[in-house]
Amino acid sequence: MFKIPKHQVAGHQAIDGNLGPLVDDSGRFYKPLQDDERGTTELAFYQSFSSKLPHHIRGFFPVFYGTQLVEASDGSGLRPHLVLQDITSNPLNPSILDVKIGSRTWYPEASEDYIQKALEGDRLTTTVTLGFRISGLQIYESKESGYWKPARKEVKSFSADDVRLVLRKFVSSNLEREPDCCFASTTYGGRSGILEQLLELKVWFEDQTVYHFHSCSLLLLIDKESVLNGRTVPFVEVKLIDFAHTVEAEGVIDHNFLGGLCSFIKFVSEVLTDSKVSTIEASFN
Amino acid sequence: MFKIPKHQVAGHQAIDGNLGPLVDDSGRFYKPLQDDERGTTELAFYQSFSSKLPHHIRGFFPVFYGTQLVEASDGSGLRPHLVLQDITSNPLNPSILDVKIGSRTWYPEASEDYIQKALEGDRLTTTVTLGFRISGLQIYESKESGYWKPARKEVKSFSADDVRLVLRKFVSSNLEREPDCCFASTTYGGRSGILEQLLELKVWFEDQTVYHFHSCSLLLLIDKESVLNGRTVPFVEVKLIDFAHTVEAEGVIDHNFLGGLCSFIKFVSEVLTDSKVSTIEASFN
Repeated sequence: MFKIPKHQVAGHQAIDGNLGPLVDDSGRFYKPLQDDERGTTELAFYQSFSSKLPHHIRGFFPVFYGTQLVEASDGSGLRPHLVLQDITSNPLNPSILDVKIGSRTWYPEASEDYIQKALEGDRLTTTVTLGFRISGLQIYESKESGYWKPARKEVKSFSADDVRLVLRKFVSSNLEREPDCCFASTTYGGRSGILEQLLELKVWFEDQTVYHFHSCSLLLLIDKESVLNGRTVPFVEVKLIDFAHTVEAEGVIDHNFLGGLCSFIKFVSEVLTDSKVSTIEASFN
Repeated sequence: MFKIPKHQVAGHQAIDGNLGPLVDDSGRFYKPLQDDERGTTELAFYQSFSSKLPHHIRGFFPVFYGTQLVEASDGSGLRPHLVLQDITSNPLNPSILDVKIGSRTWYPEASEDYIQKALEGDRLTTTVTLGFRISGLQIYESKESGYWKPARKEVKSFSADDVRLVLRKFVSSNLEREPDCCFASTTYGGRSGILEQLLELKVWFEDQTVYHFHSCSLLLLIDKESVLNGRTVPFVEVKLIDFAHTVEAEGVIDHNFLGGLCSFIKFVSEVLTDSKVSTIEASFN
């Protein structure tokens, strides 16, 4: 009944006897509870967030159903898992972008070892320069060619220009060097599109002094088929995941997340603006 | 004709035979040009900024009059100085707050030595936790007691609560443990008050991809006497200074400055909100 998730793009994977998350057929996602401080922190977050966040913000987080003892994927026996909403269970062919937000994934309360390792990763990726980094992705192209899912090593070495290209490919029907961005206006744009959702999050982050989300990911999910099939509301979702390093804010806004989010918003809005310009140019030709 | 500035609160000072800035009686400020990369970078910034920034943002920067050979304050002879507007020449008794904005004062292009030193300073101060740190200040109290100007060592060790207290004292007639914040509404608040000016800067930083301002300071200047004397427009100024580490943005917003600025805005707005609540409470008693 438990299966390896088909659409996981980052994080530990339940393959080759490793410990990783599982899903079932009812749309639930089982994330193994890490047995150190990270597990405690993430569980504490899920147990408290719904009472601490305003209603319109809760939808950005996966639904939490509690914990459950489940046979671990590494064969080590029963282990407590967080039971969460499987946010990839609905779309048929989800294109997914996992974006770790913030120009700093370390935080003062962490161990010195953690800080040094995180800082090194931040300097080697676009985290410091762009205020975010892409941690993983899959982009659906077609029935014939399936998904483009670059290897982790390739994703880790993305430059600013690679990020720009990925954000264009993510909303294109072709994955060539010059993506057409034909889904930009219906996925990034629109009244409940990705940009509007990100701006809603931004307004909240300008004011909220509840949590500091270190090393947390923004997950963008779209189903390009749903746009092609002419669904009135295309499948477009923005979710926050990974709270193993989420700490209390102590009266200060999460300026690290907010700065990175604003930078990411600028990247997305540039794709949207450019695609509008192309559409206008095309209509004149 | 050249004098040591009366109202300098941070940075190198032209005292005891050291190299530091000078002022004259015509309202100009002479900053020694550092003879390494910092000097080149700061000069390049001042020579180019007015053509690169929108008109309504230029007022946040000191006017630049060019360079001039001036007898250096350390007795080493003639040295090129940046000739700038002396932003403290107008108010009679300026209260000044120098706030270094950003949760990171280092940047990838800097030398490894600089990065390690800057990172250490960022972790020892409120830079990492609050996204900014107070680098220096003076607060005018009265003719009798003059200014409160804590020693640099004290300023460096400020906690988040110390910062909150300083931001209240800055707009109070008394400097005791319970400052009255009686100038909050006329200096932080109001149509051209500090908060409005900071929000104007913020809007620009959400979009600008011209400069990244590392280790740059926001200077708040107010003249409480001008409020007491019933001037229709009290003396309230927000300026950006120190551009020795300002680099080109390469198409990315300055998420580090923006995040810190938003955090500082939240601190200022909290003082303003609290002071309004106190006023309402007082009017009911």
